[in-house]
Amino acid sequence: MVMFEDILKNINNKELLVHCLTNYVTVNDCANIILACGGSPIMADDILEVEEITSICNALVINMGTLNTQLIESMIKAGKKANALCHPVILDPVGVGASKFRTDTAIKLMNEIKFDVIRGNASEIKTISEGHGTTKGVDANSSDTITHKNLHTTVDFAKKLSEKTGAIIVITGAIDIVADRKKAYIIENGHAMMSKITGTGCMLTSIIAAFCGANPKNKLTATAAAVCAMGRAGELAVEKMQKEDGGLSSLKMYLIDYMSKTKEVLCEEGIKVESR
Amino acid sequence: MVMFEDILKNINNKELLVHCLTNYVTVNDCANIILACGGSPIMADDILEVEEITSICNALVINMGTLNTQLIESMIKAGKKANALCHPVILDPVGVGASKFRTDTAIKLMNEIKFDVIRGNASEIKTISEGHGTTKGVDANSSDTITHKNLHTTVDFAKKLSEKTGAIIVITGAIDIVADRKKAYIIENGHAMMSKITGTGCMLTSIIAAFCGANPKNKLTATAAAVCAMGRAGELAVEKMQKEDGGLSSLKMYLIDYMSKTKEVLCEEGIKVESR
Amino acid sequence: MVMFEDILKNINNKELLVHCLTNYVTVNDCANIILACGGSPIMADDILEVEEITSICNALVINMGTLNTQLIESMIKAGKKANALCHPVILDPVGVGASKFRTDTAIKLMNEIKFDVIRGNASEIKTISEGHGTTKGVDANSSDTITHKNLHTTVDFAKKLSEKTGAIIVITGAIDIVADRKKAYIIENGHAMMSKITGTGCMLTSIIAAFCGANPKNKLTATAAAVCAMGRAGELAVEKMQKEDGGLSSLKMYLIDYMSKTKEVLCEEGIKVESR
Repeated sequence: MVMFEDILKNINNKELLVHCLTNYVTVNDCANIILACGGSPIMADDILEVEEITSICNALVINMGTLNTQLIESMIKAGKKANALCHPVILDPVGVGASKFRTDTAIKLMNEIKFDVIRGNASEIKTISEGHGTTKGVDANSSDTITHKNLHTTVDFAKKLSEKTGAIIVITGAIDIVADRKKAYIIENGHAMMSKITGTGCMLTSIIAAFCGANPKNKLTATAAAVCAMGRAGELAVEKMQKEDGGLSSLKMYLIDYMSKTKEVLCEEGIKVESR
Repeated sequence: MVMFEDILKNINNKELLVHCLTNYVTVNDCANIILACGGSPIMADDILEVEEITSICNALVINMGTLNTQLIESMIKAGKKANALCHPVILDPVGVGASKFRTDTAIKLMNEIKFDVIRGNASEIKTISEGHGTTKGVDANSSDTITHKNLHTTVDFAKKLSEKTGAIIVITGAIDIVADRKKAYIIENGHAMMSKITGTGCMLTSIIAAFCGANPKNKLTATAAAVCAMGRAGELAVEKMQKEDGGLSSLKMYLIDYMSKTKEVLCEEGIKVESR
Repeated sequence: MVMFEDILKNINNKELLVHCLTNYVTVNDCANIILACGGSPIMADDILEVEEITSICNALVINMGTLNTQLIESMIKAGKKANALCHPVILDPVGVGASKFRTDTAIKLMNEIKFDVIRGNASEIKTISEGHGTTKGVDANSSDTITHKNLHTTVDFAKKLSEKTGAIIVITGAIDIVADRKKAYIIENGHAMMSKITGTGCMLTSIIAAFCGANPKNKLTATAAAVCAMGRAGELAVEKMQKEDGGLSSLKMYLIDYMSKTKEVLCEEGIKVESR
């Protein structure tokens, strides 16, 4: 049986455009993984066209990976427009906490735009919550890792942050949490090796946008489905990489390969999800 | 026998530099596919150096995938210089019609620069012809698809547009058309799956530039050769992908792999081309 | 036995952040190869954050591949900060000599920043030394190729340039030279096919930064180790590509794959290095 069957059906049954204001490091992989899971990506960031482009799309990604002043203006303009049109808007606050500029920008974006989903690692989400942070670069601090020991507290934290921000909160790591103010999915798919490829976070954010764009009335489940799909695809990719004696670049290829086989990836036997 | 043998010979027998003013989404794949087919790419877009860079090159690509005001100025400067030096200049009006900014920019570029080749999907080329459009994003509208039924009309349209613009017109889709005002090549290589990888259009534009840069006196045939090569490489890549049970990321890799074996790709048995 | 064992140990035993101000063509491959060899990349180029970001890192890459005026300002600010903190700073003067803008920028950067390592092909390094040049694009002129015949002269030249600039000089080509004012490593690993992939130079510069960031007290050996690793990984990748009947895109994947197996790559049997 395929988990999240209805979510998947909606993705495959309509034209699904995802507008991405994203960083230049992982942009190609984000475009390709959106295509792989059944959407169509548009990367257009000039302030003269962002509103018009976002109007013809179904969802908007705002990814802070490589910021600059002009891009932030475009993000705000696109975000407000997407809000007005009730398109799902997803924030990926890459590296927030690593510089004052990033933290200030995240706060500014959250003040100006209503986000439907915010996805980050534990350190990034902590910074979002506290308004300041100590992120070391783009990876989570080891002290912020989600474990079974602190899971209960972290789920509570995510639910409260969702209540405060109005956004579905996604914290990714060894254990992933997808929470709105009432309900949280806890997902244990994925593999540590995925963090050794650049852009797995950005790619996940992109497919969350695709899944939510296709399921605007069911965003919590759609987001959980995207997180499961990415994690499971990662597991299968690591298996294949090891079998083929490949390395990290093979792993990235297999990861996107498996995302183009979403049904296989989301079959019930492989998915490790529970809700609270 | 290798089709387009003379075209290929010219590519392999000289130093062939291709200057690309292109989008940041697919730029790496464009650089690699130019190298694969025997050229050498240079991506330099600052207005302070575009003229000098284009002067040492053999062809210029102007790709509108991710536009901004500064880049447009650089495009015009480089384009004028390339025109003055009689280098082939290729326009890829990515997403034209999707925003007023893109449509205006395409018109502006066409007013300021003489293009030798314009390549787009059916919706983009329609927009170019009419000066306005309804492109949904970066893919062709299904209503604009080239079929055997509308082929005759479309070939006529392409020839007339070539007459009007002075450029070779390339319309890509399930059937590809390469036309100047007198003659059209109709190419049926390629595979629907290629549209599920970002950048197949951009990559094709890049190799058209390489092929024309090496064959400036034979641009129509060179362009047809590039379109055949890309389509046939795509077919072979899909076959290999299916045999190896891979996905869309493997497909992209195999596509570029095959473009590094141009002779194999352009062998007569595989090429489906006719001219009218 | 693993060559450069101590160098490797330092890479794997600490958190290693590499700040990259680099071009948008090869940035994804640079990020992935830094991760593959055990580091963690951060690409942040806005002037409002470069100082703060470089402060939390262990090394800085300044790559001139796609220059613009704003980026140059960020490079200078980041470079000065990294100098103040004694972080290794690596210059990759991509295409210097191909335009006045690039040559002027390289000179400006060298005046403002103290570089620990400068890596380029023979034409680029010649331009750096003479202050003007005739680089054709981003590849070395064939007249500048390092051969066994001119090796002695070239090593001398590299040592003198190192004395003049205070930087370790890395000249890459069929034979690679890594020299400070007193000592030079001559490395004959690598394969001609590597130059048919975009970004092998940029990737090497990135891993030199990672190796030096982990070994700030032993930068000459660390740089030589990085050059050997890249060359040997390239050889192994070409072998695998040929065995699997792949093409240039496969080659890139295998290259990064092998860089994630640095121990295997740096085993003594495969490394061809001598010092003078």
